[in-house]
Amino acid sequence: MYRPGNADWWCRSLENKSLNIAKSIWWENGVIHMLDQTKLPAKEVKLHITNADDLIESIKRLSIRGAPALGVAGAYGMLLVADDWKDSSEAPDWEAIKSDLEPLRNARPTAVNLSWAIHRILEEAESQNPANKSEAYHLMKQQAMALHQEDEDRCREIGEYGAELLSDTSQVVTHCNTGALATGGIGTALGVIYAAVMHGKNISVYADETRPLLQGARLTAWELQRANIPVTVMTDGMAAPLMQRENIDAVIVGADRIANNGDTANKIGTYQLAIAAKAHDVPFYVAAPTSTIDTSLESGEDIPIEMRGSDEVIRWGDIPTAPKNIPVYSPAFDVTPAQYIAGIITDVGIAREPYDFSGFIGSEK
Amino acid sequence: MYRPGNADWWCRSLENKSLNIAKSIWWENGVIHMLDQTKLPAKEVKLHITNADDLIESIKRLSIRGAPALGVAGAYGMLLVADDWKDSSEAPDWEAIKSDLEPLRNARPTAVNLSWAIHRILEEAESQNPANKSEAYHLMKQQAMALHQEDEDRCREIGEYGAELLSDTSQVVTHCNTGALATGGIGTALGVIYAAVMHGKNISVYADETRPLLQGARLTAWELQRANIPVTVMTDGMAAPLMQRENIDAVIVGADRIANNGDTANKIGTYQLAIAAKAHDVPFYVAAPTSTIDTSLESGEDIPIEMRGSDEVIRWGDIPTAPKNIPVYSPAFDVTPAQYIAGIITDVGIAREPYDFSGFIGSEK
Repeated sequence: MYRPGNADWWCRSLENKSLNIAKSIWWENGVIHMLDQTKLPAKEVKLHITNADDLIESIKRLSIRGAPALGVAGAYGMLLVADDWKDSSEAPDWEAIKSDLEPLRNARPTAVNLSWAIHRILEEAESQNPANKSEAYHLMKQQAMALHQEDEDRCREIGEYGAELLSDTSQVVTHCNTGALATGGIGTALGVIYAAVMHGKNISVYADETRPLLQGARLTAWELQRANIPVTVMTDGMAAPLMQRENIDAVIVGADRIANNGDTANKIGTYQLAIAAKAHDVPFYVAAPTSTIDTSLESGEDIPIEMRGSDEVIRWGDIPTAPKNIPVYSPAFDVTPAQYIAGIITDVGIAREPYDFSGFIGSEK
Repeated sequence: MYRPGNADWWCRSLENKSLNIAKSIWWENGVIHMLDQTKLPAKEVKLHITNADDLIESIKRLSIRGAPALGVAGAYGMLLVADDWKDSSEAPDWEAIKSDLEPLRNARPTAVNLSWAIHRILEEAESQNPANKSEAYHLMKQQAMALHQEDEDRCREIGEYGAELLSDTSQVVTHCNTGALATGGIGTALGVIYAAVMHGKNISVYADETRPLLQGARLTAWELQRANIPVTVMTDGMAAPLMQRENIDAVIVGADRIANNGDTANKIGTYQLAIAAKAHDVPFYVAAPTSTIDTSLESGEDIPIEMRGSDEVIRWGDIPTAPKNIPVYSPAFDVTPAQYIAGIITDVGIAREPYDFSGFIGSEK
């Protein structure tokens, strides 16, 4: 049986298939390179970031977004903050660097991956008691590279497990952006699609535009078009008639948080898509790393839902699209109950109903 | 039992409730007055149209839209085309006026109500053999006023029947614009809401923004806000989580065409909303005049679906929101199967499953 995570095979296949998968962020010669996602899909602009202030600014402007990609940005960002440790023989001052890292940690308050990555790297580096700042810096650099590599591996593993669910010729619906632009690797739901294509399957994708912020139309369409994977954009309300009239094989989406019983919080619009899939007997899959599963949450009812302001819904740039002072209902996420989910594709395998993740993770890890 | 269509009661109630319901189009002193809907919701601009060319131009620009409202525009437009008949003692030249009416009839090719109204008025006027053009003009004017009045009455009747379905305090979800801006009266689905409010019920409305053209955010929100009915805008993908978390009493939408078995074609996004309503046990109602029912269509499968171009989905004014040359799936309408519809509210009563309209109309008309 194929074991996922074979990076060599992937590198060879990527070349063979000339699958031009985007890269959201990478570290080279002391510089963070990233695609400026605010310029997509109109222009492909790369940013070369050499100091923490510019990084924070780019995170705030959403030049980089997506929880896993922000984790990688946080990890590399630490190296910019600790740049003067690189060649210093002084003893490491952990309190000082923690305080210097505060602005980066808080660049986007709701993005937990930023502070998660910073916390993890600090803890691991400190626990090894480096003799001086230079040693500490190189430990942190190792950890940052490892964190990025882990994210890449996890995406590939999710992709490999998920690819087996798709038949040789499949039409797939997806929502939001869950690809290379959102992670440090090939993505989660889009990772499954990339992996299936790498294995020679013919996959075509229908991408929900994903109101209000249009990540599907702007980012997913861009990234799949670039990789030569056929992609068609539609508004979020078009998925049900599409499934009624066309042969759709699967819906695959990402996840922001998964409760122990499988209830899944994801970008607003996901739940309605899941209901439509069930009504048409189309299997609805969630693709996410096991780190997304929060076994402390018994069910989706325990997941707090962030409410967004009205401007995203009733303005387009400077143009108002609704009367002044109109109230708006705008949750950032919704919760899809587990009974709508045919499988949760993770980096350690595919979970099926009835979901119970404490057992699942225990047995595979 | 209350009999709908009591216009006097309505006039008194409208004043008492100070329900400021918009008017899309009216005829006064030989001039067509209309709200310029292209300027909404930003500005309330009235157009005063005195010749057929300006009317055709305003129809093409979508200053007026909505099938019933276009019927009324066509009816009054005939009077502008036939203006030189007003005081003429010549014999009516029906062939000449038919040919003069062609540009108006074709102002929007897919809007059948335009040519339906023109055909009906011509036929009725001609059948009375008026002695001269002046007499013919006044017959056509009578017919045009009657057609508008009928549309108003029908909206009121739909409203009255539908209002009984709503409890004294109700939260209702609607889609697209089906109100005063879309008809010559108070509307269909919004007509039900206006009627319920006129009868003293506390109704609050959640309006789907209705992608791609945002008739919900732009027009429904504007018209309900103006009438002092609480309205909240949301993206089309937010209805399901709303129904999951809030107490929603009903979904009410309009219809473009209803097949004999109750399958209903309506603005894209309606079907997905109907599926979401069923999943949450929220009754889903269609409100439409009996003229929308096409008993020659056995089921929704016989309803042709117009596909739209991509610009509506992937551009915002001049701003592209997706990569160049991306394919778009964009049906203008979708078909909601009858099993999702708890009732079809018409001007002659409420139809329930199993729908069979030949019998229903026969027994009530």
